[in-house]
Amino acid sequence: MEYKILSEIKSPKDVKMLKYEQLDELCLEVRNCIIDTVSKNGGHLASSLGAVELTVALHRVFDSPNDAIIFDVGHQSYAHKLLTGRFNKFSTLRTYGGISGFMRPYESEYDAFVTGHSSNSISAAYGIYKAKSLSGEEGTAVAVIGDGAMTGGMAYEALNNAGGKKNNFIVILNDNKMSISKNVGSMARCFTLLRNRPRYHNFKFAINKYLLKIPLIGKPVCNLLFNFKEFIKRVVYKNNIFVDLGFNYFGPVDGHNIKAMEELFRIAGSYNRPSLIHVVTTKGKGYTYAESSPKNYHGVSPFDIETGECHSKHKSFSDIAGDTLCDLAESNGKVCAVTAAMTSGTGLTDFSKKYKNRFFDVGIAEQHAVTFSAGLAKGGMIPYFVVYSSFLQRGYDQVLHDCAIENLPVKFLIDRAGIVGDDGESHQGVFDTAYLSSIPNVNIYSPCFYSELKQLILSTANNNELCAIRYPRGSQSGSFDGEISGNYTIVGNSCKNAIVTYGRLFVSAISAKESLTHTDVIKLNKIYPIDDSLIKTLIKYDNIQFFEEGIKSGGIAEHLGNRLIESKFNGTYKIHCIDDEFVPSGKVDLLLKKYGLDKQSMIDAFK
Amino acid sequence: MEYKILSEIKSPKDVKMLKYEQLDELCLEVRNCIIDTVSKNGGHLASSLGAVELTVALHRVFDSPNDAIIFDVGHQSYAHKLLTGRFNKFSTLRTYGGISGFMRPYESEYDAFVTGHSSNSISAAYGIYKAKSLSGEEGTAVAVIGDGAMTGGMAYEALNNAGGKKNNFIVILNDNKMSISKNVGSMARCFTLLRNRPRYHNFKFAINKYLLKIPLIGKPVCNLLFNFKEFIKRVVYKNNIFVDLGFNYFGPVDGHNIKAMEELFRIAGSYNRPSLIHVVTTKGKGYTYAESSPKNYHGVSPFDIETGECHSKHKSFSDIAGDTLCDLAESNGKVCAVTAAMTSGTGLTDFSKKYKNRFFDVGIAEQHAVTFSAGLAKGGMIPYFVVYSSFLQRGYDQVLHDCAIENLPVKFLIDRAGIVGDDGESHQGVFDTAYLSSIPNVNIYSPCFYSELKQLILSTANNNELCAIRYPRGSQSGSFDGEISGNYTIVGNSCKNAIVTYGRLFVSAISAKESLTHTDVIKLNKIYPIDDSLIKTLIKYDNIQFFEEGIKSGGIAEHLGNRLIESKFNGTYKIHCIDDEFVPSGKVDLLLKKYGLDKQSMIDAFK
Repeated sequence: MEYKILSEIKSPKDVKMLKYEQLDELCLEVRNCIIDTVSKNGGHLASSLGAVELTVALHRVFDSPNDAIIFDVGHQSYAHKLLTGRFNKFSTLRTYGGISGFMRPYESEYDAFVTGHSSNSISAAYGIYKAKSLSGEEGTAVAVIGDGAMTGGMAYEALNNAGGKKNNFIVILNDNKMSISKNVGSMARCFTLLRNRPRYHNFKFAINKYLLKIPLIGKPVCNLLFNFKEFIKRVVYKNNIFVDLGFNYFGPVDGHNIKAMEELFRIAGSYNRPSLIHVVTTKGKGYTYAESSPKNYHGVSPFDIETGECHSKHKSFSDIAGDTLCDLAESNGKVCAVTAAMTSGTGLTDFSKKYKNRFFDVGIAEQHAVTFSAGLAKGGMIPYFVVYSSFLQRGYDQVLHDCAIENLPVKFLIDRAGIVGDDGESHQGVFDTAYLSSIPNVNIYSPCFYSELKQLILSTANNNELCAIRYPRGSQSGSFDGEISGNYTIVGNSCKNAIVTYGRLFVSAISAKESLTHTDVIKLNKIYPIDDSLIKTLIKYDNIQFFEEGIKSGGIAEHLGNRLIESKFNGTYKIHCIDDEFVPSGKVDLLLKKYGLDKQSMIDAFK
Repeated sequence: MEYKILSEIKSPKDVKMLKYEQLDELCLEVRNCIIDTVSKNGGHLASSLGAVELTVALHRVFDSPNDAIIFDVGHQSYAHKLLTGRFNKFSTLRTYGGISGFMRPYESEYDAFVTGHSSNSISAAYGIYKAKSLSGEEGTAVAVIGDGAMTGGMAYEALNNAGGKKNNFIVILNDNKMSISKNVGSMARCFTLLRNRPRYHNFKFAINKYLLKIPLIGKPVCNLLFNFKEFIKRVVYKNNIFVDLGFNYFGPVDGHNIKAMEELFRIAGSYNRPSLIHVVTTKGKGYTYAESSPKNYHGVSPFDIETGECHSKHKSFSDIAGDTLCDLAESNGKVCAVTAAMTSGTGLTDFSKKYKNRFFDVGIAEQHAVTFSAGLAKGGMIPYFVVYSSFLQRGYDQVLHDCAIENLPVKFLIDRAGIVGDDGESHQGVFDTAYLSSIPNVNIYSPCFYSELKQLILSTANNNELCAIRYPRGSQSGSFDGEISGNYTIVGNSCKNAIVTYGRLFVSAISAKESLTHTDVIKLNKIYPIDDSLIKTLIKYDNIQFFEEGIKSGGIAEHLGNRLIESKFNGTYKIHCIDDEFVPSGKVDLLLKKYGLDKQSMIDAFK
């Protein structure tokens, strides 16, 4: 493909130099580059396609990096990356050592703040804004946040704090009517109302026209009404949630009309009051398949540009979880499923259609999702909150305070546990073992196979446990002929060397065992709390090597190590894991190798 | 005191039986009982005094426990406890084995859900409500939430989810114009507007009166306007944030007028749409001192009823933290202080007055507070977020994602770390060691003395560390003649037995040492990451007993144990700590003893 204009853009300055006539071509090239790259590397397609003109308008009006622009989540940041000096490296998107799929300040000074987890942009931007104004530095800060991310409570906390002050802080609501799937909740309805409402000028015009038809008295009444200033302002202008939160509200404006957006951005910046600009965009814009089915093209694997077809679509752990929940719900009227805007990603699409009444998409609102589930459990239902490991971090306090203190039997199905690969630091599911095991009353399981996941889900429905079942992104690999049951499974009976592990690493472990002598493999099925009888078994071994696809501090291997030392174990104990660092983007296999968690590393550990 | 009516109330049924004429007397007795008990036991006074009539009205209209009533936070729940069969035990409020100061379902079926941490009531109530309706059970659920708690994003997530549905779910906004101190942010202003706004009927009346004066044409215009239904409804009725969120809005109603409240509760319950009822109360109502200075009587130590004076007001760690921040801010214009509605509790009152521009009370919004601080740090300021240990649990993901990935030098001053005593399970600061040490790049310190805290705060201002300094509730106890510096301090040189500890337990440890032979005390000053040289020192010991005022799983003692086992330590290692359970209410000394963390337990550990 040819990128005549885009290839010349070295920084936002170059975007500012372009004439309006050139912008259509630029946007086309940006879209082509995004589609081409994502078709090869996978990534977040539809959101970025929708935000191309918005990004161009932002970089023409604001002066990044002097003005800090933060794209919430970062799904919509690809055009921004292309226009801020990263066109040449863009083919490395989401690869090890390449361009991140989210905003990363370590990657570029134009990425003003880390993004990845939803709804943090207003807080961060307001902090940067205050820092600038306190130190008398030039520049402003702009948060660009989707209507989906606006369902996260953190965004509201930030609006509540930033609103009503004397400043020209700017929030841009990129309203594409979608979260990852269709946006849900009252705010979504509220945005629809705003979108379809006549603007102030239109309204004033209509009223005038109407009343002026009344002879003699029409005009005075008209004036009377329009002098009734507070009255009118509140009806047509002030009447929305953002105004209540202390923001000037501008819009809605067509998010594919660069000139119109530029105008509003400039007007907003001229007020000494925080502004929210409501920009309406089309998710997937410019790529037919994505535009007509934005949900399916939100986050994609590599695909064929011509046909729109994904190269791979295997059965995944998510599918198994969803299918099993459907089976459960069929036979048990108490079973509910809760998701935080991840119906499709967590395999709940079928459930959401078949068991509408017992399916709850609560928006990108993990805190509420956890406590709402606790309420369901308190009321006698059997709630399964299906959530990505890294996103449940948002609900840490709610698991602890709202579920665990009363030991309510909420069931967490934790998808994307362990290394997730291409999404990088913000999305690796490597902390849940640590943060969940620190909470009393939580039971944690980590299946390796589909059959095991299924069995675990089925068994939780009838017990009274507060529990978490964590499983990896993607598909099962490998298989095992033996039986997996109870809290742990021992393969071999040498009682000399032991590989201890859990989850999908078990497959590598049994494979490594074949190259090792006198080495048993111990797979934890229930990974926490640790079974007393396991400790009694393990202290007989000479050499225990624990392989854990998770963070070291507070992980399961540390808990086990302490049980061993307290039991006066005096053999060798070594932990192989992620030693307290953030895991970057990269293919899962490559990263497992990097952290010494692959088959060969297991073999080498006993040399 | 005499409690003629109150002593006869065994359940809400008895409240329903009373005549309106008796309710004044009941409310008086409830207030007297609350004042009397809190004056002896300490507790949350002003909020509960303000909610007496509200609670009576609730229990007359709703049918608890069939209808689940959840008092958010629980500061306002004392009247509820008195009216639901706990009058006889109320003198045990906040004592070990006694009545909890918050809602605890294990204590009474009338406490529908755990409360303590702010803003969870709507989520929990909505979960319970849905469970009831799904299983065809009778009853509804009512969340009673203060205007302060409405600044927490979780409440908004829940409103967004529950709003606009076909149900009769009820939220009651107990608006006393206060968070713990004066409520802040846009919502507070928004509530003030609502409070002072004419009701629909008044407004309609005024308009009619005005327009009808115009001869001939007045009436038709009037009709015209009032047929312009959507128009008017949005101006006078629909125009607020709750309506945008899909709730019927009722009120404001006088929260000390039981009859008026009962009427509104009944009307609201009759709609097939969620309702929010805006109740205006006076915090501290009925006790002169509390009414005129509700902030000072929010949470109180035992006090003299006649004079209103607290029996004890010693200098505390909070004061030292606040004073030191003031000193820092004086000499360094970059120093900022952030609080989540805890200005007074965290010792920041002086700072808030002296350095107004650099002081930020963001509301009960820990998530935003963390990320806003990260934004400040990113913009070059030196932000100190001063927060209670158990409340920072709300910001776990933000510390990890928004601070730690980029290693931004945010400084956390963690007050109420360790056992806090009377507030019980929800407020014990025993998890921060585990959850913070699981996050890469976080440095954790735990001073024992004022001088140490001061020194640590001063030193952090000029380094580039993301760090947390955690210190206990209340005052310093004991002293130490030696020098405390570096990452750890060793007292003694026996190299045989070691008491390892950190924080205030050090005082007990050096005292225990006097009764022990060949025993050194090792105090960790920087508690995480653990210094390599410490491990080299410790492996020479025969017997190491680690005393930790915190949770076991993921705590510092576990991290140390693993370093020891990996270093082939083969002496005795034992951890004394809170072994994965929730710590109930009780005096600190009593609880320390219960968990084997007092001086005598330390001595006994070496027997």
